[in-house]
Amino acid sequence: MKTVRQRQRLAPSKRSQLILDAALQLFGTSHYSIVTVREIALACGVNVGLIYHYFENKDHLFRSVLAYAVGQLMAGYEERRGFSDSDPLFDLGIWLDVHATIAPTLTRMVKIMADYAAFDVRDAEVDRLVADFYNHERTVIERTLKRGIAAGTYRSVQVKKLARVIGRNLDGIFHASASRGDNRIAADIQELREFILSFLGVSQD
Amino acid sequence: MKTVRQRQRLAPSKRSQLILDAALQLFGTSHYSIVTVREIALACGVNVGLIYHYFENKDHLFRSVLAYAVGQLMAGYEERRGFSDSDPLFDLGIWLDVHATIAPTLTRMVKIMADYAAFDVRDAEVDRLVADFYNHERTVIERTLKRGIAAGTYRSVQVKKLARVIGRNLDGIFHASASRGDNRIAADIQELREFILSFLGVSQD
Repeated sequence: MKTVRQRQRLAPSKRSQLILDAALQLFGTSHYSIVTVREIALACGVNVGLIYHYFENKDHLFRSVLAYAVGQLMAGYEERRGFSDSDPLFDLGIWLDVHATIAPTLTRMVKIMADYAAFDVRDAEVDRLVADFYNHERTVIERTLKRGIAAGTYRSVQVKKLARVIGRNLDGIFHASASRGDNRIAADIQELREFILSFLGVSQD
Repeated sequence: MKTVRQRQRLAPSKRSQLILDAALQLFGTSHYSIVTVREIALACGVNVGLIYHYFENKDHLFRSVLAYAVGQLMAGYEERRGFSDSDPLFDLGIWLDVHATIAPTLTRMVKIMADYAAFDVRDAEVDRLVADFYNHERTVIERTLKRGIAAGTYRSVQVKKLARVIGRNLDGIFHASASRGDNRIAADIQELREFILSFLGVSQD
């Protein structure tokens, strides 16, 4: 009888996830235009051919990476929803918690978004992914504020304005954390939380 | 008599500024690793040799571009200081005004900082420039808050915490404006200003 040595086989979904993780890491620390499919294959230990089995080309992989990162945020948020009733920030509290939990993914996600936005090439699907992400964030924040104001938990504030301030603050935390070099993402999110509660009159700062 | 056609000659400082402007534009929309000195020369209509006359190499040019952008912010701020006494945000108001005035420069500056921070190569002088920028910003914000609190113009707040919230908000405005695609930098800065005044108890929001 022959002994057959088999390479460990991963389920297809696991293999594509492996590729997406490596691509997110490379696109998110370098730049789309200089990362090659070969480098991504090397980074996750698969054949280049396997990457092309799952993804048509580098553009398709890039879009998939962005969808993958945004998807992690959305899924984490949906999983936890409904368990937030003791949090005075309701769904916004969940949104912030998920940001803290998957911070490295989000740091790379916003880097990819910024690279894409600064570049002069547009792609309808990437545009839609980015817009969906910001629309979703705005909805979560505004709905939370309206709910709290209606319940009398928060003082009355200008919802759209405060929602923008909160959204930009989250942007600042994730986009600039590496430049600031202070490794404060969790602390920054906690500070943002306290700050919102103080502004809404729920707590003293 | 021969007619001699002369190329228009710029003063050396003007010429190096021309190069820095083109390099800021290219580094700030593409990525350090793919921008070539030749492209920069093309973009500003000078010989590659002239660029190497002013800058040793691409690294030196990159550092000079960052220093040039940070320098514009600092100079704009210093020029206007002392004319802020009618602004309830004092020096911080000036700081915000200068940001609005040179917004395109700062958008590219933070993009360059983010690219550099995400990349795995460190340069002591670039690190120092970035740290100086953030230290300067923190000093302006904290000094303003302390002054206003001491004068009784602002309610008493936790200075360091609020300074970080304001700094991250500015980061969010400049880093994410392109991703948000809403072309709101001036409006965002105005909103941040109103928001700070409201938080400090100077105005109702």
